Amino acid sequence: MQYHLDGFHPGDPETAAPAPGRPLIDKDFAEPVDVLIVGCGPAGLTLAAMLSAYPEIRTRIVERRPGPLVKGQADGISCRSMEMFNAFGFAEKVIRQGYQVNETTFWKPDAARPEFIARTGRIQDVEDGLSEMPHMILNQARVHDMYLEVMRKSPSRLEPDYALQFVDLTIDPDAPDHPVTVTLERQDAGHEGETLTVKARYVVGCDGARSGVRKAIGRELVGDAANQAWGVMDVLAVTDFPDVRCKTLIQSASEGNIIIIPREGGYLIRLYVELDKLGSGERVAARNITVEQLIATAQRTFRPYSFDVREVAWWSVYEIGQRLTDKFDDVPDDADPLRLPHVFICGDACHTHSPKAGQGMNVSMGDALNLGWKLVSVLQGRCAPEVLHSYSAERQAVAQDLIDFDREWSRIMSERPKAGTETDGEAPKFQRYFIQHGRYTAGMSVTYQPSALTGAPTWQSLAPGFAIGSRFHSARVVRLADAKPLELGHVVRADTRWRLFVFCPDEDPAAQDAAIARLGRFLGDATDSPLRHHTPAQAAPDAVFDIRAVFQQGTRELSLDKLPAFLKPRKGRLGLTDYEKMFCADRTGGRDIFDLRGIDREKGCIVIVRPDQYVAHVLPIDGYEPLARFFGGFMLPG
Amino acid sequence: MQYHLDGFHPGDPETAAPAPGRPLIDKDFAEPVDVLIVGCGPAGLTLAAMLSAYPEIRTRIVERRPGPLVKGQADGISCRSMEMFNAFGFAEKVIRQGYQVNETTFWKPDAARPEFIARTGRIQDVEDGLSEMPHMILNQARVHDMYLEVMRKSPSRLEPDYALQFVDLTIDPDAPDHPVTVTLERQDAGHEGETLTVKARYVVGCDGARSGVRKAIGRELVGDAANQAWGVMDVLAVTDFPDVRCKTLIQSASEGNIIIIPREGGYLIRLYVELDKLGSGERVAARNITVEQLIATAQRTFRPYSFDVREVAWWSVYEIGQRLTDKFDDVPDDADPLRLPHVFICGDACHTHSPKAGQGMNVSMGDALNLGWKLVSVLQGRCAPEVLHSYSAERQAVAQDLIDFDREWSRIMSERPKAGTETDGEAPKFQRYFIQHGRYTAGMSVTYQPSALTGAPTWQSLAPGFAIGSRFHSARVVRLADAKPLELGHVVRADTRWRLFVFCPDEDPAAQDAAIARLGRFLGDATDSPLRHHTPAQAAPDAVFDIRAVFQQGTRELSLDKLPAFLKPRKGRLGLTDYEKMFCADRTGGRDIFDLRGIDREKGCIVIVRPDQYVAHVLPIDGYEPLARFFGGFMLPG
Ligand SMILES: Cc1cc2nc3c(=O)[nH]c(=O)nc-3n(C[C@H](O)[C@H](O)[C@H](O)COP(=O)(O)OP(=O)(O)OC[C@H]3O[C@@H](n4cnc5c(N)ncnc54)[C@H](O)[C@@H]3O)c2cc1C
Ligand SMILES: Cc1cc2nc3c(=O)[nH]c(=O)nc-3n(C[C@H](O)[C@H](O)[C@H](O)COP(=O)(O)OP(=O)(O)OC[C@H]3O[C@@H](n4cnc5c(N)ncnc54)[C@H](O)[C@@H]3O)c2cc1C
Repeated sequence: MQYHLDGFHPGDPETAAPAPGRPLIDKDFAEPVDVLIVGCGPAGLTLAAMLSAYPEIRTRIVERRPGPLVKGQADGISCRSMEMFNAFGFAEKVIRQGYQVNETTFWKPDAARPEFIARTGRIQDVEDGLSEMPHMILNQARVHDMYLEVMRKSPSRLEPDYALQFVDLTIDPDAPDHPVTVTLERQDAGHEGETLTVKARYVVGCDGARSGVRKAIGRELVGDAANQAWGVMDVLAVTDFPDVRCKTLIQSASEGNIIIIPREGGYLIRLYVELDKLGSGERVAARNITVEQLIATAQRTFRPYSFDVREVAWWSVYEIGQRLTDKFDDVPDDADPLRLPHVFICGDACHTHSPKAGQGMNVSMGDALNLGWKLVSVLQGRCAPEVLHSYSAERQAVAQDLIDFDREWSRIMSERPKAGTETDGEAPKFQRYFIQHGRYTAGMSVTYQPSALTGAPTWQSLAPGFAIGSRFHSARVVRLADAKPLELGHVVRADTRWRLFVFCPDEDPAAQDAAIARLGRFLGDATDSPLRHHTPAQAAPDAVFDIRAVFQQGTRELSLDKLPAFLKPRKGRLGLTDYEKMFCADRTGGRDIFDLRGIDREKGCIVIVRPDQYVAHVLPIDGYEPLARFFGGFMLPG
Repeated sequence: MQYHLDGFHPGDPETAAPAPGRPLIDKDFAEPVDVLIVGCGPAGLTLAAMLSAYPEIRTRIVERRPGPLVKGQADGISCRSMEMFNAFGFAEKVIRQGYQVNETTFWKPDAARPEFIARTGRIQDVEDGLSEMPHMILNQARVHDMYLEVMRKSPSRLEPDYALQFVDLTIDPDAPDHPVTVTLERQDAGHEGETLTVKARYVVGCDGARSGVRKAIGRELVGDAANQAWGVMDVLAVTDFPDVRCKTLIQSASEGNIIIIPREGGYLIRLYVELDKLGSGERVAARNITVEQLIATAQRTFRPYSFDVREVAWWSVYEIGQRLTDKFDDVPDDADPLRLPHVFICGDACHTHSPKAGQGMNVSMGDALNLGWKLVSVLQGRCAPEVLHSYSAERQAVAQDLIDFDREWSRIMSERPKAGTETDGEAPKFQRYFIQHGRYTAGMSVTYQPSALTGAPTWQSLAPGFAIGSRFHSARVVRLADAKPLELGHVVRADTRWRLFVFCPDEDPAAQDAAIARLGRFLGDATDSPLRHHTPAQAAPDAVFDIRAVFQQGTRELSLDKLPAFLKPRKGRLGLTDYEKMFCADRTGGRDIFDLRGIDREKGCIVIVRPDQYVAHVLPIDGYEPLARFFGGFMLPG
């Protein structure tokens, strides 16, 4: 962490000083807002946490419920989401408090005694080297709490407005400033039904599967009928089932499937219990299923093991269908060139699917992360408002993949295990499918297609391990100034800046004509330097582009004072030197970052990383013109 | 972390529910207290944090200052202290917010141009494998904040009483209950000079070098005259000195020495500047040294590098002497067999020394950690009150080592570097001494001598890597139930319980006659079982002894349901199973914990670890009699 830049300040460096006039006091929403977020689920809170770092942006978030969620709903946190949490600063807390998924086990009917289950396999849950972050399980409510803490410690001191329900909105495309007018309805005691009118520049519907914002912009969830019913329960139980602290998938002979998700704290577990198929148009509520029925089903499935539930913390039954909205903003299909979007939807408002692959919270947060930095950049005048079109384009494709995956996975999970369908020793189909799709469930297969924000693969061969369009895959390096080993990816904070990772060729970087020195001169002096062009005059040198160099040498082979000055930028009120821009390869593990990501040692390269941690481009280290062109394509003059 | 044992509770699991009647409301100290702590330095706060976990113990902590410390004083946190912070739950936060010392560099006059300095060496600061924790630097005030947060989140909701000065105390050895009467004086505006009288069972003076508690029990600091003056300043500066973000020791030709301590946040640095020797009886205050003088001295020392101070966050000048109190409690020398102690002193109240080796905060916290669990155990009726004698015995020896070390280190640091005293290529003396004493400065050389609390080395050869009397050296293992890799030492929390780590011999632990099964039967059934003897009837099975087994097998070679029941204890209101008592060797690094610590694979062993993380004993796995005898020596019936 970097702090004390503008002078020493006592107290917790993770709590920002409140900006003037914050927290906002405007119960009636009399003042227009820049961004109105509807819904305090994972999507809404990710967006709010990101925006809360910018007090100059007037953000409000409203929630129909009377207060924060306390239990239930999703609990799976993919490695990819953990990488994002790290950028927000609370990954460690999730690791400390949560359950870490290390192994997944598979059970099916015992061939000899099909009324009993037997283990068919145990696999490592996340393949080695996929991410520096683990796959975690933690109650969605606790994740909400962590976002709320980020907001509370931000300069905006942003707090949700609870007990306020979105009712409707209208858009006036000709209004110069705040084109969206929203009607909210109070839900708090004594004021039920009173309405408020809010003017907003942008409205984001993070209001879940029955999204009112989605309806207001005339979009709908389209897809399969919801004919698969599931029960879910968080329980404290006593059992002799040996894998109860591992994630476990059970296919039983006579009952449906069960998924065990061990939970945070070492005692709690979640069970997903598959119920009978519903008839066409039937709702699961109509079946009046009780938690006792779910427990009884589980007990039958677990045989020969006992399963004695001592307390039920939360439970629910629901039907599942794979459904998707065709576009995630208010601009009609094909009208993108004509209109800018002002209303967006995120998360379950756009896509619904089964909880079996643990994607609900993760994909929703990914939506918000994608939209968040774009909104900030546009509101700050750094990016052209046209980048906002890319939100729907990028995330709708991700959601389509999710729906396709979920449909296939649900089908495979629901196949009744038949004796003789697998040759002896071969792992069952659901186990094989699970392994094949490990990267997908870890959240690593999201790849944005070439666009203004994502370069073409022209120079991909310079660093094949940083696939353009996919998330920046961190690796260990050593910081030059203080020899600290760290994950390079962790320099990416949720601060909406762009990173340029410059991997230097195998030469002395202190030489006058070294590639890094020449790059420094281009960025510092050239009239078409993106750094000069897009960084506001009064801003810190790294306010928009955060440039980090990675050398092939070890820390003791280089002398900090000899290296190019642009890698030691002077910042802040006191003009202090930032010593955290230079890194060396870490060879302690045998293979350094150049080896691990296949970076061309002779040529080096520049890897451009978006504010949401996705690789935007790979360029030659002297690719000045494509560098300038890339940023010129969507960024405004500083 | 384990939680939800007694049912699901929403909210942050790291914030305990307040105990009934807490926080205490008793501004006038009308009620007698169990423990009165004087002074909110590192010693007092370590003790208060530990005691705050036990709301049944009435603890108060008073501090003369009007509020918490905000800057200055010590900043070095040894690996050993980090291990302790981990037991309190805030090591990660210190790692995140602090500066991590990785390399130390050494500079002395350039042979060719003695008016300039030149680097003579760069060394890794902490030897590999010494601790899983790094050596950190963080403002003492921030460490205080973290303890205050532990207290605030504890069931006691303990808050210091500020602006209350200790004045004097008297002890009535015949009083049955609260033998100490303390006079406090209010310092708050409008009430200055008003006194309060407090009755206490125990009083602990953590009131620093000029301790009033020490004086009240008639003890004094004895030792060398304080004739070495130093200046210290925390500054924000601009310099071209290349090692400014490494810990650095500079011996200059014409000036004194300088030590650079890079500080948290990436910009701040601390400089220790050696000043002229003082005359006999002279006080440094009399010299009227200004911060400008310190800066000028530093600038001359840094030549040929520039050093431009932009802001001074804190500075101080002081004289140093190595001084020590002969005994750390109120029982007169040789009266230990006759009387029990009721007043103790900790930290700087017992010992003062230079800040050069960064020990001030660390040794003081170590004192408090040693005393803390003993006080809790005695107040809870678990240990005989005689164990309280061991505090002074154990910690006075540690302080004596500190004083000896500091005297030698100060002498070597103050030797003027002379040309020609070292043969070419040989590292200077101060650099060699620094390397030799790395284990000392990391806090790892503390070794308690054999006593009722520390066993004889009879069976040390069963695990030479767990030296009896020194801190338990953690290593990685894998938890059986969920295949989670973790540090075995991290199961030791600051909760005053004893740990029995049972390293199993190379056999099937599921066999009826396996050593672990037999141990379980002894502990569960034998009349002389320490577990049965010292655990209260109503308490959890692991309330006093926390038994953890480590197997040589990998997780997939063992089946949890086949292993002895005492390793799956049933706990809490709901009788849930604790799955975190069994571990497997982690072979991913090549060498597992048996290899790393030299544990006898054929015989196994029991390693007894004290509540303060020190190894109390190493015993054969079937050493039932010595096991019972060891605990019978100081523990009371449960
Ligand atoms: C009851 C329930 C149980 C679930 N169980 C599981 C599970 O077991 N496993 C799993 O993986 N996933 C589960 N999910 C899905 C998972 O929680 C979602 O995928 C995830 O939360 C999506 O995040 P989101 O932010 O898009 O929407 P949500 O988390 O649904 O958040 C939407 C928020 O908007 C609020 N809101 C809705 N309408 C309005 C309005 N008009 N005005 C103001 N606020 C409004 C809602 O109260 C809610 O807080 C469950 C969801 C629900 C609702
Ligand atoms: C001004 C100063 C500068 C220092 N600078 C450095 C440094 O640069 N580097 C370094 O390594 N170490 C430094 N130290 C030493 C280091 O801070 C101590 O070694 C460490 O704090 C010892 O911890 P402690 O808890 O024993 O005592 P302290 O931290 O001294 O705490 C004692 C507390 O008791 C309070 N107190 C004292 N008398 C009374 C009373 N009668 N009633 C109530 N409260 C009382 C004090 O206000 C203080 O808060 C410095 C200490 C001081 C005082």
